[in-house]
Amino acid sequence: MEEPVLLLVEDDALVVMVAEDALELGGYAVRVAMTGAEALDALDAPGAGFAGLITDIGLGGGPDGWEVARYAREHQADIPIVYMTALSAGEWPTHGVPNSQLVQKPYAPAQLLAAISALITTADANRAASSIPCDPPPAAN
Amino acid sequence: MEEPVLLLVEDDALVVMVAEDALELGGYAVRVAMTGAEALDALDAPGAGFAGLITDIGLGGGPDGWEVARYAREHQADIPIVYMTALSAGEWPTHGVPNSQLVQKPYAPAQLLAAISALITTADANRAASSIPCDPPPAAN
Amino acid sequence: MEEPVLLLVEDDALVVMVAEDALELGGYAVRVAMTGAEALDALDAPGAGFAGLITDIGLGGGPDGWEVARYAREHQADIPIVYMTALSAGEWPTHGVPNSQLVQKPYAPAQLLAAISALITTADANRAASSIPCDPPPAAN
Amino acid sequence: MEEPVLLLVEDDALVVMVAEDALELGGYAVRVAMTGAEALDALDAPGAGFAGLITDIGLGGGPDGWEVARYAREHQADIPIVYMTALSAGEWPTHGVPNSQLVQKPYAPAQLLAAISALITTADANRAASSIPCDPPPAAN
Amino acid sequence: MEEPVLLLVEDDALVVMVAEDALELGGYAVRVAMTGAEALDALDAPGAGFAGLITDIGLGGGPDGWEVARYAREHQADIPIVYMTALSAGEWPTHGVPNSQLVQKPYAPAQLLAAISALITTADANRAASSIPCDPPPAAN
Amino acid sequence: MEEPVLLLVEDDALVVMVAEDALELGGYAVRVAMTGAEALDALDAPGAGFAGLITDIGLGGGPDGWEVARYAREHQADIPIVYMTALSAGEWPTHGVPNSQLVQKPYAPAQLLAAISALITTADANRAASSIPCDPPPAAN
Repeated sequence: MEEPVLLLVEDDALVVMVAEDALELGGYAVRVAMTGAEALDALDAPGAGFAGLITDIGLGGGPDGWEVARYAREHQADIPIVYMTALSAGEWPTHGVPNSQLVQKPYAPAQLLAAISALITTADANRAASSIPCDPPPAAN
Repeated sequence: MEEPVLLLVEDDALVVMVAEDALELGGYAVRVAMTGAEALDALDAPGAGFAGLITDIGLGGGPDGWEVARYAREHQADIPIVYMTALSAGEWPTHGVPNSQLVQKPYAPAQLLAAISALITTADANRAASSIPCDPPPAAN
Repeated sequence: MEEPVLLLVEDDALVVMVAEDALELGGYAVRVAMTGAEALDALDAPGAGFAGLITDIGLGGGPDGWEVARYAREHQADIPIVYMTALSAGEWPTHGVPNSQLVQKPYAPAQLLAAISALITTADANRAASSIPCDPPPAAN
Repeated sequence: MEEPVLLLVEDDALVVMVAEDALELGGYAVRVAMTGAEALDALDAPGAGFAGLITDIGLGGGPDGWEVARYAREHQADIPIVYMTALSAGEWPTHGVPNSQLVQKPYAPAQLLAAISALITTADANRAASSIPCDPPPAAN
Repeated sequence: MEEPVLLLVEDDALVVMVAEDALELGGYAVRVAMTGAEALDALDAPGAGFAGLITDIGLGGGPDGWEVARYAREHQADIPIVYMTALSAGEWPTHGVPNSQLVQKPYAPAQLLAAISALITTADANRAASSIPCDPPPAAN
Repeated sequence: MEEPVLLLVEDDALVVMVAEDALELGGYAVRVAMTGAEALDALDAPGAGFAGLITDIGLGGGPDGWEVARYAREHQADIPIVYMTALSAGEWPTHGVPNSQLVQKPYAPAQLLAAISALITTADANRAASSIPCDPPPAAN
């Protein structure tokens, strides 16, 4: 069975490893970007269609996680987004995007898995619910 | 300011009057149908684009409220739907559609107003959130 | 059309007046109790079946709002409850009951109306959804 | 500790295997039905009381997933339902039942686990919240 | 009873009039700003503590509604925000802030009232729920 | 990476073992208390700051789960709480605290994991959203 692909943006290799393991155990494929620039490239790649984005805020130079998330939403208006952060949680009400989740470090990997899975299911349902049938239905007689 | 139009389907003239007053006080325009057949016609009319549907279940012959709601969803997949019923609440888990609300009679008109308003706002947000931009965004350099 | 009856528990006559007007404008009938003891009596009265309870916390002696709410839930496990309070909001996480709402004073009457209406609609839906049919359905052939 | 039993309805043996593993890892017991007819039989069996239903839509002849779900709700009005589908998501607003979830293929098994677990917990809470105590509580003196 | 004050930011005088009437009928006091600059001034005024912000997006020059909302959140991290817009709904997933609502024009005034009231009640509850008691509770013996 | 610590209160050693394994697999550290008194001690310990509380109701003498939860909320007003129970679900509407979840035995460990993870993420977001910045932002010129 094809696996949905998540984009995981995090500059700490140890955190990447733990998060990646948990997400793969949950059945996702994971594309890792270790800088904001690398994340933008991944989003720009032809055919990229990520099931969700999980991003750290502080990314050590270049675009930060807030910018990566906005950029991702410009490509894909309903992409599920989970922010992970230790220090920047207080900026989420101002810099986050709607329908996103915040996971505060230290967190358990199960939180990431639960948060992104719930957002993807909600986005799928919303997409199904707001698809507008193009052909008029047959008249009811 | 243009008013959003609700389709109110109810065969009891007294209930229509009370509900219509409350909805108009809340700023909606109301199109009333007193039978299921009349409701289907209203939904089929060219240019009909209702902001929401409020329907009784028992409609005294012809299509009942469950059928009216399904017919409306076939035209407009995310149309907000509120069912009003005294006796048929127990059938909602089986015969209702997803993302609908149930208001049990006797109810206060404020419940109708709150239920339909919340569903419309949610549907607007979902539609905004799942609109897919057609043009690729400019590359990030 | 029969109106759903709310029990409003508040010892400040001015607040009662403003809240009662708003709730009646929304289509509810309102039974007022100005002390906790009076509220318990109202809940004990034969045939009492309130659509919802709106209660202040500090009630000037006798049972307070936290106790009134618990007593109401013992009678009717899913009664919608809205607490109104200026000073005791911080006790809600410890003393409130599940599926209740907190409205902090000063509030707009529209908040009361929205909060109680949403809770009633949710309770109706839950009751419909968890009604267990007693007779087995016909076998599927 | 006794395990809650899920009914998993899916005609693709490979999908069954992956989903079953994930659900069992999460602590559920799984009863598999590979056709709609088999699913109806499982629901009709004396003593069947499933904690939840997870069903594919297209089932290769016989009742489809929409019908299986309605049949399950007729037996058990609040049974949690998750639909899995690749092609039929757009029919969910019309053919799905209220309080159900939609998981779009390809999905990660963690989505199934998260969706069904959340629905079961919500259903338990609703059932607890709407249980009506039969005996009047003692008078408050 | 003191009334909660909303900041309403809208450059169309007719819309202001209709929205203001509805909000005042609901029991709110309303402070109107007709440009983004005026809105920022209102937020900067000493003692300003708005219960919520309702803002149009296009404001005819100066800061737009997205900027006004971010500025408001920098002052008051949990201020409830409702955006009203006809044309810019598609930008909400990228430019809106978390825990905000979008009301699409044309809307019914009841939608504004329902959306802002629900957000205020939720913010009050969250504030109550996350207030951290400063004194340790007495030891349990 | 540091792990969030959960307090698990349960007097049945077998249930403890199964729940502990599932929670640790999800990435949590688990502190077990097998009586209510032991749970209160754990909450009183200096430096205790639990990410969440999972508690059985019947604890064989001493404080029961309802009391443990209230005590925990007095220390930490927004601590996420999951109750597990076979027999006492019907008391939750009266004895539970707001923003808690109920998991009915028999349950799947995945339900515990999903419920506590979702509550922790919500509490983090609420805490971020209601943090009040202490310094006034720079004036907007």
